[in-house]
Amino acid sequence: MIRSILYLIVTIILLQSCKENTADKEKFQIDDTEYELPYRIPDEKNISDVVCKIADYIIKSTPYQIINEKTGGEIIDFSIPDTNAIVDTRTGSFNLWDYTVGVIHTGMLAASDVLERADYQKYVINNYDFIFKNLPYFREKALIKKPGNGSYHRIINMNALDHCGSIGAALIQAWQINPDIEYRKMIDTVENFIMHKQFRLVDGTLARKRPQKESVWTDDFYMSIPFLVRMGEITKNDIYYTEAVNQVLQLSSYLFNCNKNLFDHGMNLNAKEYDPEFFWSRANGWAMMSITTLLDVLPEDYKDRDQVLKIYRAHIKSIAELQGGNGLWFNILDKNDTYPETSGTAMFVYSMAKAVNEGWIDYTYASVALAGWNGLTMYISDEGEIENMCAGTTFGADMVYYYHRPPSHNSLHGLGPALLAGSEIIKLLRNQDFKPVKEWRTIHFKPTETK
Amino acid sequence: MIRSILYLIVTIILLQSCKENTADKEKFQIDDTEYELPYRIPDEKNISDVVCKIADYIIKSTPYQIINEKTGGEIIDFSIPDTNAIVDTRTGSFNLWDYTVGVIHTGMLAASDVLERADYQKYVINNYDFIFKNLPYFREKALIKKPGNGSYHRIINMNALDHCGSIGAALIQAWQINPDIEYRKMIDTVENFIMHKQFRLVDGTLARKRPQKESVWTDDFYMSIPFLVRMGEITKNDIYYTEAVNQVLQLSSYLFNCNKNLFDHGMNLNAKEYDPEFFWSRANGWAMMSITTLLDVLPEDYKDRDQVLKIYRAHIKSIAELQGGNGLWFNILDKNDTYPETSGTAMFVYSMAKAVNEGWIDYTYASVALAGWNGLTMYISDEGEIENMCAGTTFGADMVYYYHRPPSHNSLHGLGPALLAGSEIIKLLRNQDFKPVKEWRTIHFKPTETK
Amino acid sequence: MIRSILYLIVTIILLQSCKENTADKEKFQIDDTEYELPYRIPDEKNISDVVCKIADYIIKSTPYQIINEKTGGEIIDFSIPDTNAIVDTRTGSFNLWDYTVGVIHTGMLAASDVLERADYQKYVINNYDFIFKNLPYFREKALIKKPGNGSYHRIINMNALDHCGSIGAALIQAWQINPDIEYRKMIDTVENFIMHKQFRLVDGTLARKRPQKESVWTDDFYMSIPFLVRMGEITKNDIYYTEAVNQVLQLSSYLFNCNKNLFDHGMNLNAKEYDPEFFWSRANGWAMMSITTLLDVLPEDYKDRDQVLKIYRAHIKSIAELQGGNGLWFNILDKNDTYPETSGTAMFVYSMAKAVNEGWIDYTYASVALAGWNGLTMYISDEGEIENMCAGTTFGADMVYYYHRPPSHNSLHGLGPALLAGSEIIKLLRNQDFKPVKEWRTIHFKPTETK
Repeated sequence: MIRSILYLIVTIILLQSCKENTADKEKFQIDDTEYELPYRIPDEKNISDVVCKIADYIIKSTPYQIINEKTGGEIIDFSIPDTNAIVDTRTGSFNLWDYTVGVIHTGMLAASDVLERADYQKYVINNYDFIFKNLPYFREKALIKKPGNGSYHRIINMNALDHCGSIGAALIQAWQINPDIEYRKMIDTVENFIMHKQFRLVDGTLARKRPQKESVWTDDFYMSIPFLVRMGEITKNDIYYTEAVNQVLQLSSYLFNCNKNLFDHGMNLNAKEYDPEFFWSRANGWAMMSITTLLDVLPEDYKDRDQVLKIYRAHIKSIAELQGGNGLWFNILDKNDTYPETSGTAMFVYSMAKAVNEGWIDYTYASVALAGWNGLTMYISDEGEIENMCAGTTFGADMVYYYHRPPSHNSLHGLGPALLAGSEIIKLLRNQDFKPVKEWRTIHFKPTETK
Repeated sequence: MIRSILYLIVTIILLQSCKENTADKEKFQIDDTEYELPYRIPDEKNISDVVCKIADYIIKSTPYQIINEKTGGEIIDFSIPDTNAIVDTRTGSFNLWDYTVGVIHTGMLAASDVLERADYQKYVINNYDFIFKNLPYFREKALIKKPGNGSYHRIINMNALDHCGSIGAALIQAWQINPDIEYRKMIDTVENFIMHKQFRLVDGTLARKRPQKESVWTDDFYMSIPFLVRMGEITKNDIYYTEAVNQVLQLSSYLFNCNKNLFDHGMNLNAKEYDPEFFWSRANGWAMMSITTLLDVLPEDYKDRDQVLKIYRAHIKSIAELQGGNGLWFNILDKNDTYPETSGTAMFVYSMAKAVNEGWIDYTYASVALAGWNGLTMYISDEGEIENMCAGTTFGADMVYYYHRPPSHNSLHGLGPALLAGSEIIKLLRNQDFKPVKEWRTIHFKPTETK
Repeated sequence: MIRSILYLIVTIILLQSCKENTADKEKFQIDDTEYELPYRIPDEKNISDVVCKIADYIIKSTPYQIINEKTGGEIIDFSIPDTNAIVDTRTGSFNLWDYTVGVIHTGMLAASDVLERADYQKYVINNYDFIFKNLPYFREKALIKKPGNGSYHRIINMNALDHCGSIGAALIQAWQINPDIEYRKMIDTVENFIMHKQFRLVDGTLARKRPQKESVWTDDFYMSIPFLVRMGEITKNDIYYTEAVNQVLQLSSYLFNCNKNLFDHGMNLNAKEYDPEFFWSRANGWAMMSITTLLDVLPEDYKDRDQVLKIYRAHIKSIAELQGGNGLWFNILDKNDTYPETSGTAMFVYSMAKAVNEGWIDYTYASVALAGWNGLTMYISDEGEIENMCAGTTFGADMVYYYHRPPSHNSLHGLGPALLAGSEIIKLLRNQDFKPVKEWRTIHFKPTETK
């Protein structure tokens, strides 16, 4: 009898393996309906707990150490060159100079602001201070060793927007808090790179030389526009806002599909109008977050702002219509046989919530953002780690590549966006202009009566 | 050994739970191919058996009783007020004044007509008689008790199209059979509500004040147009046909997506052109059935009939292209990761079969309607109950809501449409203008040679 | 304990039955990612092995025998009429006069050319010789027996494009190698049928009288255009190229959906613009292969070549975007709940690879073709048989029919296209204008530096 029960238990356990990616998630019985996600109006405490879990995981995983790659031992005496010296990334690449870290910094600052957590702001300052303190060591020792991933090579050999735009944008935010001269020097280095050195098409569109000779990437929205926007903010020089607006419109002219209202991951100019389109979720997230950042500072009467808004709103509408059943978006947005992906989802949730808070899109979109947030929380572990983030993905040439980019919990791409998303959802629930109402088993945001 | 076999049996049973919604249906081996549905030309007997099963289930489940909500005991003496009095709905809401009951009445009349079953017509008359007999009791007792679902509150506090359009349209049909003065008074009450009291946009489009201040719903096609059409029929007053045609065109101007040729479930005017679109199956069914009802009586040369036909035909084409593998339509029409839904399916089958019979669309669509009917029959139990009807669904603001509206066998939404569908499929097979031919393993309808 | 293990094994075996169509395929671990297909740059040997496997299977399965249908015994004395005489098709219909055999011949000639295998060319000659040697026997004995499938009835009663276009096109190729007078006479018979006898619409578009009185089929691209193209090639008479170009444009005007950039399987003229569209994979393959054949010979400055190219490129782009995760295309291209189908896939792989090799489309499409080929190889058995070819499919009237056309390994539809695909992929890898580069876990084709 005991054996029978044991077999049954084993059978049931094995049966679990039959279920697909999302099916092993907890089910939620709300009223008389079973949901794949907690489909509800959360209270602020619930949301801030999730945000803090992620932030605490980030802080805990940031070691502020230079180590010997071979031995793992901490290096303390920087007067002695060590060809094995690297930044310690054993618990994550949080101390690197990287675009994902840029978004994390921006997210930590947002969480600090919304939750009044000075330690989150302090984290950002500490992180940049650590970079600038150790940079000379790697820069000078670069003579004896080709700089690699653990050695600030993206500063030392800055040669791509990936190397500077996102982390530079967050640096400007940090500099506004801590006006350090080292910060400012680096800001100017980045400004010089983006404005004058980065490869562009003849029409001025930011571009890359890979995978083909002239390739335009949707990722480059975020690798340039937030930095340009922040530069405009601190310099009051119109050149940056104008450049940011122009890049939105020019990149969109190559990448925004006006029938599907989605961004193609990239275009190879050699293939012209017949370049195949791949609607990869995170690329769409980068574009939407970038325009969100731009609209946040752009004066209402700025030239071509209406054109930017038009693309932004059409994009948000299309994204809302492609939301999957559990609140997340599919890794390839229009392919429901790909897995629910968290980094793109977090970017959409943040952007939509912000767009509603700022009045750039109708407040009814708050329901979409909230459902997305509720779904996202299921993929955040008790330790603050995020599952189902699509691993690093290049601009590929075939759909089969995109289908196989695996879900990961080690990449950093979703952490910053999730901090931003949670913080903005809190602001959404605090917003006095409208309030969520549970009605007929769904959640409608309605204008407050005083309005 | 016996134990081994037992374990195996348990294992196999557990494995069944691995299969999805549709997979536990019977399979059909036809020629050398396995089908998920009986993909065939049924004989009339086979269809009429299904129609009668549903009709008999409806009749059997209609108790004609007023009961004490607490004790369940029948109330016979209506001279004594009873604050617990309700219409008995324990076996279904068949004695209520409700839009789903309206469609059931229309379906019973169609079945009565096609199958020459006087008892089905009698059922409709009995049902209305029951309502009107008991209405004064609830109306007068309303002083001592807020009327609820079981108390004809939709008559007593008529304040929405849901409260009167569909059940009122069927009432006109009943009045044509049984010209009772009570019927007629109620018809005039409904007419007054729809024509003069219902909330409208400034351009005259029928609208609601929920979920937002100005919201247009695709459900309102059926909640108004059949009534207007029947009013036109009995009064010979052009105002009703013109209003019906105008509502089709105006509602469509807000709700019909001319690229996808589908109806959005609803539009909130505050969100204007950026309102997200949800192509919920039943809403599309309401629209298609309403236009079907309109075309049935509208003179061929009526103003704007061609515009109505254009929308109707484009809609039917799009719907045909979205039919699922087992003949049913997905609950969200363009999301094949939602379940096959029966109420929308029945509405499409009825409308397409009728459109073919009347010559409003090409006869090749008869194959689509027939495949839909064959699929639908698998979801009708031996007792005449229908599975996989989407539960009551409001106009929601996010796709996640629509993904989670559960399949039900208790809602009444599919019963009337299934009666209509079966009756019209019988007429299709009786139609002398064309006949179904099994050819190359599929079914083509071909014009009869005499034509 | 042993018993426990046994139960577990049985359980695990049973669990396999839970998996779907594609899931029982081998998985490929490449770098750190699991793939459903060998996602890689194959070497030529690997590809030619697959091509030879298929070719050898075809050769092995071609018996060159006339048998008594009842007894199975070989017929040797053709002076005696035998009412049971048929071509031996017990190991496949390879000795029949059929459109699938036409593609096989064209594929064998391509493989012969690329792999320098004279025996593959010899196979084609042998096959036609066998047909022409035995044709008089069936033609003369037709008096005593209605010709059926095994009796060259498609020659004897030639009355459809299916009966002559594809097999006739390959015959012209064979005649170029072996200028036999019997070949030429049959070529002229086919020419006469296609140019003068085949049913056409009043505007000259090739059409059929089934399933409706005037029906246009996408299959008819391949059933006519390759023959017309080859006629133009051998006669130098412009009439054939012009007719081929016109048929591409006219058939496309009925069948090419300019929004989805896909070919509808067929259009019934009676339903006009409201004919429902079914994007069946193989039909799209026929169209793409036909245009490929046309472009191969059409002079660059030929009238309307630019219009043909425009359709062709838009089609290829759309097809690339619909490729499934395992490299194959779904049987209904835009329905990812249909199975991955091999015959359409092989046609797309061939056409895209050829289009890249010839410069008709950008070389980045080589990645799509290669991923398709890699996926296809998984469906080719060690014996050279191909799985998951959609069984013979007529132009149906409802989506349910298309959903149920079963995968087969007995039909011949994929064999010729697979030979063409493999041969062209070899040429792609030999092409000196660009080379495949594995980069960032994907495969990009890049122009060679000398270019």
